[in-house]
Amino acid sequence: MKKSDKESVREHTKETKKLSTDPYVGVRDFYPEDMAVQQYIFDTWSKTAESFGFARYDASTLEPSELYKSKGSENEELVNEQTYTFTDRGDREVTLRPEMTPSVARMVAGKRRELTFPLRWYSIPNLFRYERKQRGRVREHWQLNCDIFGTYAEAADIEIILLASSILKAFGAQDADFEIKINSRKLWNSLCSSWALIESQKKELSGLVDRKNKLEKKEFEEKAEKIFAGKETLQKFLSVMSLAPGEELPRTLTQNTEYEELMVVQSRLEALGVTNVSYDPTIMRGFDYYTGTIFELFDTDPANRRSLLGGGRYDNLTELFGGDPIPAVGFGMGDVTMRDFLETHKLLPKELQRIDLAIIPQNILFANDAEKIAQTFRAHGCSVYVSLSDKKIGDHIKAAESRHTAHILVFGEHESLSETYTLKRLSDGKETAGSLKELVSEIKS
Amino acid sequence: MKKSDKESVREHTKETKKLSTDPYVGVRDFYPEDMAVQQYIFDTWSKTAESFGFARYDASTLEPSELYKSKGSENEELVNEQTYTFTDRGDREVTLRPEMTPSVARMVAGKRRELTFPLRWYSIPNLFRYERKQRGRVREHWQLNCDIFGTYAEAADIEIILLASSILKAFGAQDADFEIKINSRKLWNSLCSSWALIESQKKELSGLVDRKNKLEKKEFEEKAEKIFAGKETLQKFLSVMSLAPGEELPRTLTQNTEYEELMVVQSRLEALGVTNVSYDPTIMRGFDYYTGTIFELFDTDPANRRSLLGGGRYDNLTELFGGDPIPAVGFGMGDVTMRDFLETHKLLPKELQRIDLAIIPQNILFANDAEKIAQTFRAHGCSVYVSLSDKKIGDHIKAAESRHTAHILVFGEHESLSETYTLKRLSDGKETAGSLKELVSEIKS
Repeated sequence: MKKSDKESVREHTKETKKLSTDPYVGVRDFYPEDMAVQQYIFDTWSKTAESFGFARYDASTLEPSELYKSKGSENEELVNEQTYTFTDRGDREVTLRPEMTPSVARMVAGKRRELTFPLRWYSIPNLFRYERKQRGRVREHWQLNCDIFGTYAEAADIEIILLASSILKAFGAQDADFEIKINSRKLWNSLCSSWALIESQKKELSGLVDRKNKLEKKEFEEKAEKIFAGKETLQKFLSVMSLAPGEELPRTLTQNTEYEELMVVQSRLEALGVTNVSYDPTIMRGFDYYTGTIFELFDTDPANRRSLLGGGRYDNLTELFGGDPIPAVGFGMGDVTMRDFLETHKLLPKELQRIDLAIIPQNILFANDAEKIAQTFRAHGCSVYVSLSDKKIGDHIKAAESRHTAHILVFGEHESLSETYTLKRLSDGKETAGSLKELVSEIKS
Repeated sequence: MKKSDKESVREHTKETKKLSTDPYVGVRDFYPEDMAVQQYIFDTWSKTAESFGFARYDASTLEPSELYKSKGSENEELVNEQTYTFTDRGDREVTLRPEMTPSVARMVAGKRRELTFPLRWYSIPNLFRYERKQRGRVREHWQLNCDIFGTYAEAADIEIILLASSILKAFGAQDADFEIKINSRKLWNSLCSSWALIESQKKELSGLVDRKNKLEKKEFEEKAEKIFAGKETLQKFLSVMSLAPGEELPRTLTQNTEYEELMVVQSRLEALGVTNVSYDPTIMRGFDYYTGTIFELFDTDPANRRSLLGGGRYDNLTELFGGDPIPAVGFGMGDVTMRDFLETHKLLPKELQRIDLAIIPQNILFANDAEKIAQTFRAHGCSVYVSLSDKKIGDHIKAAESRHTAHILVFGEHESLSETYTLKRLSDGKETAGSLKELVSEIKS
């Protein structure tokens, strides 16, 4: 074969090459069945947040990269390696938002003079991260974000945890299905001070505690030993780390009020019916910006023992934009972990997709009259489609069932002339004959 | 000043430089007031599409760039210049989706063996385009996409136009507020054949007709003259272009059935109560992929005489992915033009944000008890917040009003002891005293 022939073959192959139907790597297509689950999750999130008086907001997926780089070179590396960041043709660095908190802090700071504080705000943004694929981790996910801005009141910390708990309960979860672990950055800072740790040691120790559950006990202790100067303080630290769930922090370990404050949060939540809260000194939360109460919710099922959501108080974040700090407390929870939780505990409703009625024209000539009938049902709030195909009635019914359609109505010459119709309920075959008005009532009952 | 001092000042300035609170250029922040409008639009879109039995789907914002390049080098240029396209660290070319049709065609083709056709699908994706800012054009916008896949039936073309019209009517629009202009690619192809145009001439002419409204009459005619070989065919073309709205195409101009078919679409829509449809030979729709009926809805208000939505039949698009073609008909409509239309015709409801109740603790010590009362109201479906601040009652009420709160309830020692409460309606000051149960009924009435 001559070279030019080869090239010609290659050209031809290239031209007739079929496009792949796969989505981009690490992201998800939502076919109607999955989208119905997604919408059920989003709707339950919205409804619960709105029952607490939270108002919805949103921002663009695209943010100036500097928004994420503001906290020094360490963050700069994070932005470059773990986010989708690119330069646009106007030579601006743009990032696909990896989290919502910087965006909402930007928005709140931007209109601080016009907004009436405290604000209760929520959002359900899609977020992007560029990382290796692993179970439950995708490159694009959705996250409920709830925040209260503009108050230092402990009542806000309590309410935000109450809201997190109420959201899981709105899906039908019981207190026994999950546990709420609380800690406090102030308490942690105070403990570190009592152990005479300097800033760099504290930072290193916080990182170690954050990874505690991923390390063997021995490895964890060896690493801790390297951070502490003296045996005595190391022992104090390790005794805090070995507290059983719900066990109180010994009074000898703290001369401060931060622990008492945290216990007040716990007891007030109990008074509000949230009985699954306990102090956990290993809760650290990755982000640097937390300043007070921090918390994390975990699934109690051994099959899905994962973190469901986390959050806390961050009173300094808006300082990046100038002006006085605006105190804030909030949390975020992802769609993937939410769905895993619902599936683990069998809390997903069976019938998320439902259509009230399929009108089946006896043949295609009746399609327009069928559509007219459909409009009458729609005007009364029913969801109705006209079954369009050349198939037999049996096939129309099979298709209706696959679409979770509750009723069918066959429309032909008889129906056209008599203006009476027969509705058939697919679940049990029950038939009802009558005028359109009567059948609307039947569908709605 | 010594150089080192200068450097030190610069360093310092850099460190204390405040971050901008502006969003990325050309995109929008949605503060709660705007988000409420956005949600109202999305909810009305969803509700109407679902009343027609349409099922919601979604895909990721990120798509492989090849999805948009498939139609030759011309598209390649378009992808590179008018979209956000970048190379990821795995050396894959990624594009932020500029339209939804290629994604949905990919999804439908990918599961063609499992899906029950015909499909009625809708989605409300955010789309990105990289272009200069101009009125009504933003770099990120949202778009309702509705499509029927898997049927060549004319009834599907009719239904999709009926749905488009029903959506505008669901917002309260009347037939007189907008007009539906229809055309057909088949009819256009047939006319071009009758004028003996070859493919390249037809393409050039289609592009010219698509731009007709942006050109002066003289300029349009001069450009047309260059395309046509003979005076006679040019005159025929110009007579088609000068048809008055609703005027019939003279029988002498077409020996085919395509025009008849289009008139059937129009008359069937009229039978369904859609009276504002007319044939417009200048409707071209930019995309190459349309194959049959095409349509566009225009605002009739002189202040906002713009295209509101457009769509048509595209029967070949899934061929790119291999296998037999899957016929399709659909449309897309954007959030920006939708909002402009609603504002122009004063169709936006006044009270889109609403909270049922603000509970005002007499002082912060009553906050937790107030939250407990709030939970009771929430359990009955009310939206309630506890007013958290140290301000006077008057300020709490002002804040409640600014949040569109319907009622307030002041909670203090008296309420705590007596377990009777007083609800105040802010619109008229009406007070109702009673138990929680009685007040729930009052709020819901």
